[in-house]
Amino acid sequence: MAARHHDENDREGGRLAASIEDRVRDSFNRQGLMHHLGAEIHEVRPGFVRIRLPYSESLTQQHGYFHAGATSAIADSAGGYAGLTLFPEGSSVLTVEFKVNLVAPARGDWLDAEGKVIRSGRTLTICQLEVYGVSGGERSLVALGQQTLMAIEARDERPKAG
Amino acid sequence: MAARHHDENDREGGRLAASIEDRVRDSFNRQGLMHHLGAEIHEVRPGFVRIRLPYSESLTQQHGYFHAGATSAIADSAGGYAGLTLFPEGSSVLTVEFKVNLVAPARGDWLDAEGKVIRSGRTLTICQLEVYGVSGGERSLVALGQQTLMAIEARDERPKAG
Amino acid sequence: MAARHHDENDREGGRLAASIEDRVRDSFNRQGLMHHLGAEIHEVRPGFVRIRLPYSESLTQQHGYFHAGATSAIADSAGGYAGLTLFPEGSSVLTVEFKVNLVAPARGDWLDAEGKVIRSGRTLTICQLEVYGVSGGERSLVALGQQTLMAIEARDERPKAG
Amino acid sequence: MAARHHDENDREGGRLAASIEDRVRDSFNRQGLMHHLGAEIHEVRPGFVRIRLPYSESLTQQHGYFHAGATSAIADSAGGYAGLTLFPEGSSVLTVEFKVNLVAPARGDWLDAEGKVIRSGRTLTICQLEVYGVSGGERSLVALGQQTLMAIEARDERPKAG
Repeated sequence: MAARHHDENDREGGRLAASIEDRVRDSFNRQGLMHHLGAEIHEVRPGFVRIRLPYSESLTQQHGYFHAGATSAIADSAGGYAGLTLFPEGSSVLTVEFKVNLVAPARGDWLDAEGKVIRSGRTLTICQLEVYGVSGGERSLVALGQQTLMAIEARDERPKAG
Repeated sequence: MAARHHDENDREGGRLAASIEDRVRDSFNRQGLMHHLGAEIHEVRPGFVRIRLPYSESLTQQHGYFHAGATSAIADSAGGYAGLTLFPEGSSVLTVEFKVNLVAPARGDWLDAEGKVIRSGRTLTICQLEVYGVSGGERSLVALGQQTLMAIEARDERPKAG
Repeated sequence: MAARHHDENDREGGRLAASIEDRVRDSFNRQGLMHHLGAEIHEVRPGFVRIRLPYSESLTQQHGYFHAGATSAIADSAGGYAGLTLFPEGSSVLTVEFKVNLVAPARGDWLDAEGKVIRSGRTLTICQLEVYGVSGGERSLVALGQQTLMAIEARDERPKAG
Repeated sequence: MAARHHDENDREGGRLAASIEDRVRDSFNRQGLMHHLGAEIHEVRPGFVRIRLPYSESLTQQHGYFHAGATSAIADSAGGYAGLTLFPEGSSVLTVEFKVNLVAPARGDWLDAEGKVIRSGRTLTICQLEVYGVSGGERSLVALGQQTLMAIEARDERPKAG
């Protein structure tokens, strides 16, 4: 719906998209964990966000692959921000719960976590989460998840630390 | 069952527990992510592991609480190692899937993630995951989860990166 | 909390409990599926409901055990009604999502599904779900789950179909 | 993969598909619960199964919609049989766990539950589950889920009870 509006009304859609992307990037930049892991916002569209996480020794489990905790951290953030793109201005987002199947060892030069809104309601929003490992341009699914989000009235988000 | 054996046969139980704890700590020390987050193994018993994660700006979401990704990373590791304590020697552990409800804002001086084996089978093991926020000695539940693990024959785990 | 109130104030607590139990039984009796499966409300306390489902050929999967669908249907209802016991009067309950691990073949003379509230909030309530198979007085866990509920203002619930 | 083989080798593929569909229908017919609910196998392809469930008063929750237990029972069976289509002959299927988000009230003339294999491994198979409510030819998503299956060596499945 948001996407259709965007197509039909380019100028307004353009402003809308810019404001959404700013809102997502502002909030993402206040997430100390995403910064600490080395994750980056890679794409923001209404109802969709992709987060990229380059490989590093600091992200591994005992076999040298990405740790399931790193995989699910970026999946959770991707879904949360996908939800936020469709929330009214002045809203904030909380993860109620998520579930993730780790369908293959998480290896690659980087991971791409994609959050996509399946249903956006007044109180609750449901997202699908996909994480891909990318090596030499080839990408393959490493995790599949589902997430429930709640829209809340924004509180004063703290200024980003240092 | 493992716990009963441990009680009944102290000397053998003592050696068993030592070997289990060593195995868990060895593997934990090879998890680059746990080190990077600042997490520590806090308790290891047959079928139970607690991981502690002190608060830091590097672990936050946009409101300054622990990020759901940090909460679930330690929950996942706690459950995985709880499972490993009951696996035959020479086994390794993979997370098949997990689900976590974030029942309250994750704040506190530290988080304690507890993994407890509910059922340990030949192929699959089911754990319950609980994460508590601890402030001034008071602890309160911030996340509740369930996890499915698979026992696999151990591969050569890499030496820990310097 | 509700339980403490119940203990401290017996007469009011007694009336409260009665009204809760009536509310649960009224709603349960309007669930055509529970009737069709042969399920019965077995116990109602604040924050806790047990539903019993006697074995029948009509409830089986292909190996003659209880079907996972039957197991999770009573687990879902047990959790939903456990949540309802703590909602304000005039509220109704919707299941947002649930997850269930089927930890053992679901066999027995009957199943007991127990829903227990872990956290009851203004909008969302989280329950733990346990299902036991009972044979010759012995009970063993067959399923473990988690559930998210939403309190909504009650609509006119339909009269029960004849 | 199975689908590609099917396309490339029509005669063998035809026999394969027939045998798969027979295997699924045989097992489905031994599920007392599916019969009791009035569910029917509607489509079987390698890695995909659709089960249809016509509306009846016997399937309702307290507001007269399909009960979440009915919705998830057919979702679970659809996923399980989707997995079975890709298992080696002589295998049987067990649901390890599933999670389902109930994204809208489940109403309609019937429900269509679709199970689709996302990843089929030697031991474990992951499926996506979708349930649609269909009214006057319009279908809309009412539930979205994920499921983990385990392939086991077939036991003697009981003859269907009269």
